[in-house]
Amino acid sequence: MSNGPTLALVGATGAVGTVMIDIINGRESVPWGEIRLIASPRSAGKKITVRGEELTVIALSPEAFDGVDVAMFDVPDEVSAEWAPIAAERGAVAVDNSGAFRMDDDVPLVVPEVNADKVADRPRGIIANPNCTTLSMMAALGALHREFGLKELVVASYQAASGAGQDGVDRLYAELDAVSGKGLGAKAGDVRAALEAGGLSLADTPFAGTPLALNVVPSAGSYKGDGWFSEELKVRNESRKILGIPDLKVSATCVRVPVVTTHSLAVHATFEREVTVEAAHKVFEAQPSVVLVDDPENGRFPSPAEVVGNDPTYVGRVRQALDFPNTLDFFVCGDNLRKGAALNTYEVAEQLAPEFS
Amino acid sequence: MSNGPTLALVGATGAVGTVMIDIINGRESVPWGEIRLIASPRSAGKKITVRGEELTVIALSPEAFDGVDVAMFDVPDEVSAEWAPIAAERGAVAVDNSGAFRMDDDVPLVVPEVNADKVADRPRGIIANPNCTTLSMMAALGALHREFGLKELVVASYQAASGAGQDGVDRLYAELDAVSGKGLGAKAGDVRAALEAGGLSLADTPFAGTPLALNVVPSAGSYKGDGWFSEELKVRNESRKILGIPDLKVSATCVRVPVVTTHSLAVHATFEREVTVEAAHKVFEAQPSVVLVDDPENGRFPSPAEVVGNDPTYVGRVRQALDFPNTLDFFVCGDNLRKGAALNTYEVAEQLAPEFS
Repeated sequence: MSNGPTLALVGATGAVGTVMIDIINGRESVPWGEIRLIASPRSAGKKITVRGEELTVIALSPEAFDGVDVAMFDVPDEVSAEWAPIAAERGAVAVDNSGAFRMDDDVPLVVPEVNADKVADRPRGIIANPNCTTLSMMAALGALHREFGLKELVVASYQAASGAGQDGVDRLYAELDAVSGKGLGAKAGDVRAALEAGGLSLADTPFAGTPLALNVVPSAGSYKGDGWFSEELKVRNESRKILGIPDLKVSATCVRVPVVTTHSLAVHATFEREVTVEAAHKVFEAQPSVVLVDDPENGRFPSPAEVVGNDPTYVGRVRQALDFPNTLDFFVCGDNLRKGAALNTYEVAEQLAPEFS
Repeated sequence: MSNGPTLALVGATGAVGTVMIDIINGRESVPWGEIRLIASPRSAGKKITVRGEELTVIALSPEAFDGVDVAMFDVPDEVSAEWAPIAAERGAVAVDNSGAFRMDDDVPLVVPEVNADKVADRPRGIIANPNCTTLSMMAALGALHREFGLKELVVASYQAASGAGQDGVDRLYAELDAVSGKGLGAKAGDVRAALEAGGLSLADTPFAGTPLALNVVPSAGSYKGDGWFSEELKVRNESRKILGIPDLKVSATCVRVPVVTTHSLAVHATFEREVTVEAAHKVFEAQPSVVLVDDPENGRFPSPAEVVGNDPTYVGRVRQALDFPNTLDFFVCGDNLRKGAALNTYEVAEQLAPEFS
């Protein structure tokens, strides 16, 4: 164990935890001394190699946080709600990827490219990681906001199955296998019938009782009243908080699509100041964590198949709106498990490391 | 042959033509005397049963239009461009589903629920059928416009493979088969690699050189300059013309999704007058060709899998925008081969029939 702060990963064996370990292993260097893997008692004892060292997963308990400087949480809301404060009590800074604390006034919601300074603003010792759909566009939108002053946002999402966890991925694969080679999707209800015939009850799906294979599902998250689903309200509330624009006008429609991993967003953004495609391109090119893929004449634009597994936010299809002043339309993709979850969380943790050296 | 006007279907053996025949066969009654099937010389001689009568497809020629009162065209732009005027010369009213004449000042662009009166306004004897993406929302949007006065429109589409023709459908099925059961879509470029290994070159795809299986492709139609693709400009130009709002503000981003048939649109619509969800629901419920599916709390909303093969326009996820006055957000689905193509064309033809009785 080398000299350096101690990093804990809570939820080390879950879908996001697995990507987190992949990210840690892929870093050129890490500032950490000890890395500690924590999970449910069921997963304790598992051996996972991190930075060339075989680590043993330990069970979640208050003592697991002794000596921990930064504790990243990739667990369900209710687990974070209970354990992040315990970690904080034990002297760790909790960086939480769940929805438990995101909108609390005394918890900063951080995207390092946008509001890294807020990391210091943590009276409870907890920092929250934004929702994956919001994160898909934040690096790009934050850069545009700094330059042009964002004031209105209309977005439609194309969200991947892994946004609903490993269950979502497993379900999508099972559905695709069930419909494969049968010429389905051309007659009323034929996909549903094939799934049910294949033992894939629509009652057991993570996708609102609706097929996802050969389909799109305009429902993401849980119902929150007045017609809104939670993902849509998160996009609005979290964008306002991260960008520091409390009165930002936002409308979002969130739709699940049959993609495994990587969320996409069609964005219509209105600014205080004049924008051109050329000026937007310059802003994107200057942003290290954004990759501009925008040569439509030659068929170059971002898409999940090309983006998945990569760290940056990919932007393309940048157009000056024809009828709306100071407005851009564009298309953005981001791996929802990486920048949308594990990578952003890790970047916040990295931001904290110097405090403990 | 019974008494009644003569209807011709040009392109009887194509993807849309096949749906057209299905629609004609499904009508409770038809006003036509003779129905004549016309296609390329290659398809001439084929026998197809229409309304219980076995008809023989004849080859496209000027004489094929002799005695025809209404000629529906479901053929590529260049074929319509050449032959619709010939049909008109021979005394037929050409109802054309292609893009050849849609934006011509002297050709009406008709959606019967919205602007049926324009059918009479045809100096060249040609009436155009709108683009499928525009048509997906016109019945619903037209009804809202009449009540509340539409002034701004921001849309993101989720367009099906059959919008790119039978080639599009065949390609999607082939891609899905190639990726089936392999756990793909989780690593950078793995879908592309699997397609190429399976002999599905990305050079030969109707989807802009990009995988469609396990992906979404933010490109529909042909490139038109300034970052815009043709589908996006059609949505703007045709919506303005059909609704009779020449200065309607429109931004569209058109995206292809791995669905076989049925287009969807996330719509953000701003009106002159105040709107509520309740008032919008009443408008939709009063519109015969619109079906409202909007009970989000109980997981009820439209999706392609449930809409495909049906005639109406399905609307759901109706919400009052939280930050934009007089604005609704909603989700609409329509079978792009039916209301998006063949059905609307047939409805215009039906509208014309009484002129010839």
